[in-house]
Amino acid sequence: ISSKLPDVGTNIFTVIGQLSSEYQAINLSQGAPNFPCDPALIELTHEAMLSGLNQYAPMAGVLSLRETLAEKVHTLYGQSFDPQDEITITASASEALYSAISALVHAGDEVIYFEPSFDSYAPIVRLQGATPVAIKLKQPDFHVDWAEVKSKITAKTKMIIVNTPHNPSASVFSKADLDSLAEVTRDTNIVVLSDEVYEHIVFDGAVHHSVVSHPELAARSVMVSSFGKSFHVTGWRIGYCLAPAAITAELRKVHQFMMFSADTPMQHALAAYMKTPSTYLSLGQLYQEKRDLLVNLLKDSPFELLPSHGSFFLLAKYGHFSQLSDSEFVLQLIKEHRVSAIPLSAFYTDGTDDRIIRFSFSKDEATLRKAAAALCQVG
Amino acid sequence: ISSKLPDVGTNIFTVIGQLSSEYQAINLSQGAPNFPCDPALIELTHEAMLSGLNQYAPMAGVLSLRETLAEKVHTLYGQSFDPQDEITITASASEALYSAISALVHAGDEVIYFEPSFDSYAPIVRLQGATPVAIKLKQPDFHVDWAEVKSKITAKTKMIIVNTPHNPSASVFSKADLDSLAEVTRDTNIVVLSDEVYEHIVFDGAVHHSVVSHPELAARSVMVSSFGKSFHVTGWRIGYCLAPAAITAELRKVHQFMMFSADTPMQHALAAYMKTPSTYLSLGQLYQEKRDLLVNLLKDSPFELLPSHGSFFLLAKYGHFSQLSDSEFVLQLIKEHRVSAIPLSAFYTDGTDDRIIRFSFSKDEATLRKAAAALCQVG
Ligand SMILES: CSCCC(=O)C(=O)O
Ligand SMILES: CSCCC(=O)C(=O)O
Repeated sequence: ISSKLPDVGTNIFTVIGQLSSEYQAINLSQGAPNFPCDPALIELTHEAMLSGLNQYAPMAGVLSLRETLAEKVHTLYGQSFDPQDEITITASASEALYSAISALVHAGDEVIYFEPSFDSYAPIVRLQGATPVAIKLKQPDFHVDWAEVKSKITAKTKMIIVNTPHNPSASVFSKADLDSLAEVTRDTNIVVLSDEVYEHIVFDGAVHHSVVSHPELAARSVMVSSFGKSFHVTGWRIGYCLAPAAITAELRKVHQFMMFSADTPMQHALAAYMKTPSTYLSLGQLYQEKRDLLVNLLKDSPFELLPSHGSFFLLAKYGHFSQLSDSEFVLQLIKEHRVSAIPLSAFYTDGTDDRIIRFSFSKDEATLRKAAAALCQVG
Repeated sequence: ISSKLPDVGTNIFTVIGQLSSEYQAINLSQGAPNFPCDPALIELTHEAMLSGLNQYAPMAGVLSLRETLAEKVHTLYGQSFDPQDEITITASASEALYSAISALVHAGDEVIYFEPSFDSYAPIVRLQGATPVAIKLKQPDFHVDWAEVKSKITAKTKMIIVNTPHNPSASVFSKADLDSLAEVTRDTNIVVLSDEVYEHIVFDGAVHHSVVSHPELAARSVMVSSFGKSFHVTGWRIGYCLAPAAITAELRKVHQFMMFSADTPMQHALAAYMKTPSTYLSLGQLYQEKRDLLVNLLKDSPFELLPSHGSFFLLAKYGHFSQLSDSEFVLQLIKEHRVSAIPLSAFYTDGTDDRIIRFSFSKDEATLRKAAAALCQVG
C-alpha cells in the first residue's frame, strides 16, 4: 500500500489522550469540555428522536436550522445569507473544512495557512495533490504579517486558510486584519477559508471579527463553525458553513458524496435551542471566567502565561526553567505531575519548538483547581 | 470557480425527494424507512447523553462498540478482526467509502465498479484524479461477468468496488462470486472495497456472502457497513469498516482529518443495543415480509417485477406499456399517481435507460398498501 500521507502518524490529540489516561493525568490537552451540556439540549434531541425524526435530513441540512443560522449571522455580523443556497449543515466543522478544501483546491494549487495551526489543514491540502504553504504567526502575540502573506501569493495560490479565534495561540483577528486579508486577496481568484469554530468565545468585551462581517471578504469566503464547540457537545458531530452560492454549490457536491447529510435529530434540537440567543451569547462570559480562574491559579506557578483573547486555550512558556523539548516537557508533566497539555511543536510542520505548551481551560472548576495546584509544583 | 465535479448536479435522491413532497406523493424513492426505530435504542442514546458521554469519541471509535462488532463479525462471517487496529467507526457508511477511496486511490489509478451503481462511487474516484471504470451488471438478474472484469483489469487498477446486497438491483453475491473476485484479484495489488450496508437484509433463507467471510479476500478488502440502515435510523450518521491493519492505518489518516470521530452517545447506545443479536438478525425477516407484501399487492399492476434477493429495493419494468423514458415515467407517476420512485438510469453514468424504475419497500404497511393501490391504477 502506497500511502498518500506518508508523514502522518497518529494525531497528537489521540497520542496525548492515551498517555493522559494511562497516567491518570488531569486532561488539559484536547479542546473538549468535561462539564455537562445544557440538559435542555439533550431533552430537545430526545423529543426529536421520539417524534420520529431519525431518517436522512435534507443534504444541505434541516431548513429550520439553516433559517435560525441566517438570522443569527445577520444579527451578529450584519450579513445576509440565503438558507437555501448559502448555508450548509455539515457533520462537524472538520467535515466542512474537508469539503471546502476538496471542492475548491485542485492538484498543483497552493494554499496559504498559518502556523502554529490546527493539524488538519495541511494534510487535507496535500490529499488534493496541492501544496500547503505555511506562514508563521509572529510572536509574542501571534499576529499575521500581511506583507509576508502578500509576498507568498503566487499565480497558483487558490486559497488562504485563516482561523479566528485562533487555535492554539488564542489570538484573535482585528478589523484591520480583515482589511488586510481583503486587500491581499483583492483582484485575485483566491478563496478565503475561515475556521471560526470559537466564534462565540472572545474575551474582555472584544467582538468577534468574522470574515462574513466584512462584505468584500464575505463574497469570496467560506466561513466554518461548530455546534459542538459552542454547546459543549464536541462528540455530536455537527457544524455548518456559510459561503456564496457559487462556492456552496461546489462544496455541497463533495459533502453530498462524503456524508450525504448531518445528524437529523440533533439538527432539529439545535434549531429549537438556538431560538434563544443567550444559549450562544453567554459563551464568552463562561469561558472568560474559566480563563481568569486558571490564569489566577497559575500566578504562583513558574510558567509564563501568554495572553488568551479567545478560544479554549492558554499558552504557557517554560523555557526559563527547563531546557527539555516541549514534547519531553509534556511527557514529564504527565508522568510526574499528572497534568496533560499539548506541546506547541505539534502545531508546526517543521517542528518549531519555542518551549511553549498549550492548556485547554474548557474544564469544570474543580478540574482547573486540581490541575493548577499540580502545575504550581512544577519547576 | 473551476469545478472538480463539473458534471455533477443535485443528486437524484434530493431531486425526487423534493418533487415527491411538492406533489404529496407516497415516497418509495429514497432507501429510508418511514417507520420508527426501536424505542430502546432511543432510550439508550438518551441515557448515554444524560450520563455525560457527549464529547469526542476516540478517533477509531468507542472501544466497546468495536468489540461488539468484532464478536458479531466473527460469529456471522467466521473472521477475526482486531478492534484496536482493524475496525473503525465512521460517521456513516458514506464517510467510510469516501475515506477508503481517498486513502487508497491515487491520481492516475483506475477503479472498477459496477453499474447500475449507488451514485457516490464514481465521483469520489474522480475527486482523487483517478478514473472510474464502469462495468455493466448483466440482466436479467444483474450478475457480474467476471471474465469481463478480468479483461478490464490493467496495471493501473487499484481498486474494485463491489456492493452486496446490491443497490439498486437487489441482487446478491453467491459464494462463487467471491471466489471469482478472489481469482481476478489474486497476485495483484488491487484492494476490494465492499459496500455491504444491507448485510443483514437478505431473503428466502439465503446467507449474506461478505467479502470478509472469504479469508483470501478479507486480507485485501475494506468492508463497509451502516448502523443507520440496520436499525432504521438513516439520519443518525454512523457506520463502520473492517480492513487489515495496514489498510486501516491509511484510511484512518483520512478519517481523522475528515471527521476526527463519529457521534459519541450513539456509539455507546449501539454497543449496548447490539449485545442482543436479534436486533440485527431479525432484519431479513422484517424486510422479506415487506417485499412479499409489496410484490403481492402489485400482482394486478401492469408492472413486471424483477426478483429482489436482498436490500430495501424492488425493480419494476414498464416498457411493455409505456414508451416514456424512465425519468419521464417517474415524473408521470409522481404527478398523476402520487407515488415516487427512482429511475434506474440515475444509477448509470451513460444514462442507460431500460424502462426500469426502483421502488424502496422500507416503509410501513399502510404506506405500501396505499402506494400499491395507486400503482395498480397505472397503465
Ligand atoms: C478534533 S481534535 C480536538 C479538539 C481541538 O480542536 C483541539 O484540541 O485543538
Ligand atoms: C444517501 S442516499 C439514499 C439512500 C439510498 O441508499 C438510496 O436510496 O439508494
